[in-house]
Amino acid sequence: MIERVRVAVVGVGNNTSALVQGLALYRQSGSLVGIRRPMIGGLGVGDIDVVAAFATSEEKIGRDLTEAIFLPPNNFPRLHCELPRAGVPVTKGLVDKTEVERVAAALAGAEVLLYSAPSGRPETARAYAEAARVAGVAFINTTSDPVARDRHVLSSFEVAGLPLLGDDLASQFGTSVVHNALLRLLAERGLTLVSSYQVNLGGTEDFRNLVENPNTKKQSKLNALTHGHPADQPATDQPAADGPAADGPAADRPAVGRVEVAPLGYLPHLRSQKVAHLNIEAQGWGETAVSLDLKLTVHDPSGAAGVNIDLIRIAASALRSGRGGYSAEATSLFKSPPGTAV
Amino acid sequence: MIERVRVAVVGVGNNTSALVQGLALYRQSGSLVGIRRPMIGGLGVGDIDVVAAFATSEEKIGRDLTEAIFLPPNNFPRLHCELPRAGVPVTKGLVDKTEVERVAAALAGAEVLLYSAPSGRPETARAYAEAARVAGVAFINTTSDPVARDRHVLSSFEVAGLPLLGDDLASQFGTSVVHNALLRLLAERGLTLVSSYQVNLGGTEDFRNLVENPNTKKQSKLNALTHGHPADQPATDQPAADGPAADGPAADRPAVGRVEVAPLGYLPHLRSQKVAHLNIEAQGWGETAVSLDLKLTVHDPSGAAGVNIDLIRIAASALRSGRGGYSAEATSLFKSPPGTAV
Amino acid sequence: MIERVRVAVVGVGNNTSALVQGLALYRQSGSLVGIRRPMIGGLGVGDIDVVAAFATSEEKIGRDLTEAIFLPPNNFPRLHCELPRAGVPVTKGLVDKTEVERVAAALAGAEVLLYSAPSGRPETARAYAEAARVAGVAFINTTSDPVARDRHVLSSFEVAGLPLLGDDLASQFGTSVVHNALLRLLAERGLTLVSSYQVNLGGTEDFRNLVENPNTKKQSKLNALTHGHPADQPATDQPAADGPAADGPAADRPAVGRVEVAPLGYLPHLRSQKVAHLNIEAQGWGETAVSLDLKLTVHDPSGAAGVNIDLIRIAASALRSGRGGYSAEATSLFKSPPGTAV
Amino acid sequence: MIERVRVAVVGVGNNTSALVQGLALYRQSGSLVGIRRPMIGGLGVGDIDVVAAFATSEEKIGRDLTEAIFLPPNNFPRLHCELPRAGVPVTKGLVDKTEVERVAAALAGAEVLLYSAPSGRPETARAYAEAARVAGVAFINTTSDPVARDRHVLSSFEVAGLPLLGDDLASQFGTSVVHNALLRLLAERGLTLVSSYQVNLGGTEDFRNLVENPNTKKQSKLNALTHGHPADQPATDQPAADGPAADGPAADRPAVGRVEVAPLGYLPHLRSQKVAHLNIEAQGWGETAVSLDLKLTVHDPSGAAGVNIDLIRIAASALRSGRGGYSAEATSLFKSPPGTAV
Repeated sequence: MIERVRVAVVGVGNNTSALVQGLALYRQSGSLVGIRRPMIGGLGVGDIDVVAAFATSEEKIGRDLTEAIFLPPNNFPRLHCELPRAGVPVTKGLVDKTEVERVAAALAGAEVLLYSAPSGRPETARAYAEAARVAGVAFINTTSDPVARDRHVLSSFEVAGLPLLGDDLASQFGTSVVHNALLRLLAERGLTLVSSYQVNLGGTEDFRNLVENPNTKKQSKLNALTHGHPADQPATDQPAADGPAADGPAADRPAVGRVEVAPLGYLPHLRSQKVAHLNIEAQGWGETAVSLDLKLTVHDPSGAAGVNIDLIRIAASALRSGRGGYSAEATSLFKSPPGTAV
Repeated sequence: MIERVRVAVVGVGNNTSALVQGLALYRQSGSLVGIRRPMIGGLGVGDIDVVAAFATSEEKIGRDLTEAIFLPPNNFPRLHCELPRAGVPVTKGLVDKTEVERVAAALAGAEVLLYSAPSGRPETARAYAEAARVAGVAFINTTSDPVARDRHVLSSFEVAGLPLLGDDLASQFGTSVVHNALLRLLAERGLTLVSSYQVNLGGTEDFRNLVENPNTKKQSKLNALTHGHPADQPATDQPAADGPAADGPAADRPAVGRVEVAPLGYLPHLRSQKVAHLNIEAQGWGETAVSLDLKLTVHDPSGAAGVNIDLIRIAASALRSGRGGYSAEATSLFKSPPGTAV
Repeated sequence: MIERVRVAVVGVGNNTSALVQGLALYRQSGSLVGIRRPMIGGLGVGDIDVVAAFATSEEKIGRDLTEAIFLPPNNFPRLHCELPRAGVPVTKGLVDKTEVERVAAALAGAEVLLYSAPSGRPETARAYAEAARVAGVAFINTTSDPVARDRHVLSSFEVAGLPLLGDDLASQFGTSVVHNALLRLLAERGLTLVSSYQVNLGGTEDFRNLVENPNTKKQSKLNALTHGHPADQPATDQPAADGPAADGPAADRPAVGRVEVAPLGYLPHLRSQKVAHLNIEAQGWGETAVSLDLKLTVHDPSGAAGVNIDLIRIAASALRSGRGGYSAEATSLFKSPPGTAV
Repeated sequence: MIERVRVAVVGVGNNTSALVQGLALYRQSGSLVGIRRPMIGGLGVGDIDVVAAFATSEEKIGRDLTEAIFLPPNNFPRLHCELPRAGVPVTKGLVDKTEVERVAAALAGAEVLLYSAPSGRPETARAYAEAARVAGVAFINTTSDPVARDRHVLSSFEVAGLPLLGDDLASQFGTSVVHNALLRLLAERGLTLVSSYQVNLGGTEDFRNLVENPNTKKQSKLNALTHGHPADQPATDQPAADGPAADGPAADRPAVGRVEVAPLGYLPHLRSQKVAHLNIEAQGWGETAVSLDLKLTVHDPSGAAGVNIDLIRIAASALRSGRGGYSAEATSLFKSPPGTAV
């Protein structure tokens, strides 16, 4: 029988709530609903245990993880499953580099550290990575802060023979995935894009921050993304992917400039749901109109947890087989894997 | 300079209207809007001339093709272009096999015969194919009647060194294409389908016939199609295409049985537009809900003409280079290519 | 303290399930959510008891009402409330007029008989009305069969001093209500209707019957209704209601002929939900386009129960104060009240 | 035969483009499409002439009105009609109060001055009103700046026997009108509102300004409006309008606090179109879900012109019959008529 994976998490927000509750649900039900890959390296979804959690909120520190995940501003729903007390009290997270040793000590016994805090604090992210390296633990960075694509950090993991995965998690299913799939389909079928827009509405703290600080790098990054470049299927690669063919598809199709992203809307009542309205106007044969309107509703934290569950198993599997550094298997799960611009 | 392709058409309905008007529009504008493949075998969209047309409606016979395409029940719109008189009077179509010689004689000078009449008259379809063979002309069957997948007919074209393409045109862009792309995307991302429906509304004679004769083979064929099997990307092939992998995607995803197609609605005011409402309900991580609603509006005849323009060039190109029989290049453009069930 | 109303119901389908479960829910919660009129004649929603139920299905007869409402083909969901056993076994319904006396005897102690069986059996409907009259009980006919608008039946209730309400229940909220409100709004604001369509999808036995028998009177009735004439706000009354004014609104607006209703779609997975897709195309100043697309999802049986709860209280209130015959207060709750065509 | 109305306009933006082009279209076609009131005070739509126009843009001043309306940033489309040169050169608008006399002189021969400049310059608005009073011309203020609801200005018009209509034009048809109609319908049918949102997207300068200055009074005013209070049918008046009745509707329905308005989105490609996405989630009988999603597309300037055409005729009619001051007939056409807060 395979040894269970012991995971520590940084950040006790909605994404951690979705992960922790989902693990309980799948273990109880044995269901594979919504699971992209039932087995990775011999590890099933139910083979994961969260054994430590770090947070900075005073309310959460000291509370059992299974209680802390329901404290505000978290608003991911309670899933339909029993959630037995984890016996994992939330630990005080690190505030500066002097605490690396304390965190490393707290990681004893863990195999993987999943960094799932809000983006925007690169020093903190790298300090946790350092703690993981010191403790001999694999590290996963889901934020947009540069860690795996920081050459210095990556080589320190390679030297230590420890896996390092990142950066910037690509959701399992969301607006960009659907929008890009439709724009690609149009191009592939020879339609000409006239215009397209995307409106995203949500009720989490992430949304509130993005709406209230619309000019931050976050927003511009988000916009870039939503303009058509999910990590695993970059719109800009399309012509290349299709290949340069004499009789081939017209080359000027993807037309990224014609896709507009409206400001994000923070609507508290949506809670952890994200609602997107997409419109695509195009032209087919004879320049006749093709029109497509779409409404998509998802739970944002589920989209993160559904990818984290794969990353944890990729990392544990690499650790156990002694493969340090970055795993190519994870590339499609990040927006900014090593090699992309910092 | 390349020699222009001389095409004869059977059927002067909406699809022929879209083809004839589109040819004029693109020749005048030089535009590539809505064109899937600008060049095929060195032939551009503007290198096609319609030189003969056959119809059975008394009103259309004898009228210039550029007038006949606007007679009721045709309701494809007038495109924004000049439409100079073609100098091509509509010829009386054949009613039985005794007229094969007459039609063959009328095909003198043509390279390609595009059979674009309503489906449901297999004898007539094969008689036109016979006329094409006698006249030394390539044949394209866009109807669901078995011609290219009739072994006897296909071998007679192979022997004669003449191209034969068919059967049952797959639209350039329509409900099935979009519905299947989204269902595939869901499966690929690991979501579990809960339910899905599709409602199609249209205002052409085709729609009226399908609505008034809901139990015909046509309807059931259509339903089968819309349940998720466009010719070029059959839903049932998905698991195989993804490959059998130990750690791979869950195998039970496509869930065709969960996709329902509502009865077609004939709404005359839509004219040649087709409107589809799609809904997809799925589950992601933690069995949380993912919901997608889509409205798609297209011009049905444009979807046919946008594929016919490729088929004509594939057929002409094959004829000119002496490649008789079926062209694999056309396979993705038909729902029932040779080898599929009759 | 007011005396509770004792109600008998004919028909143990989805509508009765919604009524019985809703009564339990509101009694437990004291909530007023979804309640149109908290009090009628001093009677609250919680003041109703179902004390007898008649059905013809062998599976339901003899079962406790609180079990029978969940037997197939019923598919209204279980509401979020406790449902204590009613102690009301389902009684065999009447098949012909010879059983009127038996049913009348079974009504002893009831004040109101709610006739909530499927439409299409006028003899049966009138036999139950006769049983109610014999038993001294008020009668409510929710079907489209003529009972309250049958002069003979109505006068027999008037003579007996018993209330008789009917015919053909108008749902609390559904496609027609929304479609008509929007068409009226357009006309009121001076927009000109170009076209409009409505597609209804559902998963109940009612939908299956209507889809499988599209040429029955039911279907044509439904169509007539959905063309814009809910009982309480008939589209054809609009010009009259607005009044003939010299400088008033243009008279030719409502344009019922431009509203099309697509065939109903039976989609079993929707269960008791009804989904409607509406489209309205109009023109404003300068003949510029106004376009409106709407998707509406409701639970059909809730729309019926939300009106039945008012009818029961109107009937009980009239009975207690000795007002026999029809109550004008009920007029807006029926599509075919007395005085409309049979 | 009635004397034609001579109108001067301030502002040569999209709304004036819609007005001027629409007047030409209706005069040529005799059509009544999109016209709310064919006749007001004996005046038809075709009885209006624009005889003077004021603007501050250097590009527009001196150009014929029929050319100036197409200059950027105007982006209202060209309507399908001939637009003969007006012979009306755009006049330099006033910048400060010292120019009142010059403008008054330029108004000679006009009966009505329509103030259709951007909101936000109350001094300018009142200076034009003063010029109108001096010239003996009726004044209409379509902006949100206080003019008609400025007691001082209003009494000066009353004393002069001149009509003064304002403030803040309510569109003929737009998001608020539809959203409020649906929320009222829900309340009227007894449904309980759970949540509702509204997203507005547009491509005019107005939208750009509102998006780039989201904290201005304009935005907050707009939000207030879209939260459910169009002038003619204020949501807050609903309970009062329905009256306090013992057995009446539950009082806590309109639930304005549950309606959220997402930030406006400026999408240039929409040009003068406004697109709104509305969602309403409610509960009916048994607390079952009712869900409504709507997409609305309108031309914003048409919504303004369709009301301006009524205001011009109300003003001219009042002037001709000697009725000075405010006309109650105009009250439903403004968001802030006299008596509302400044």
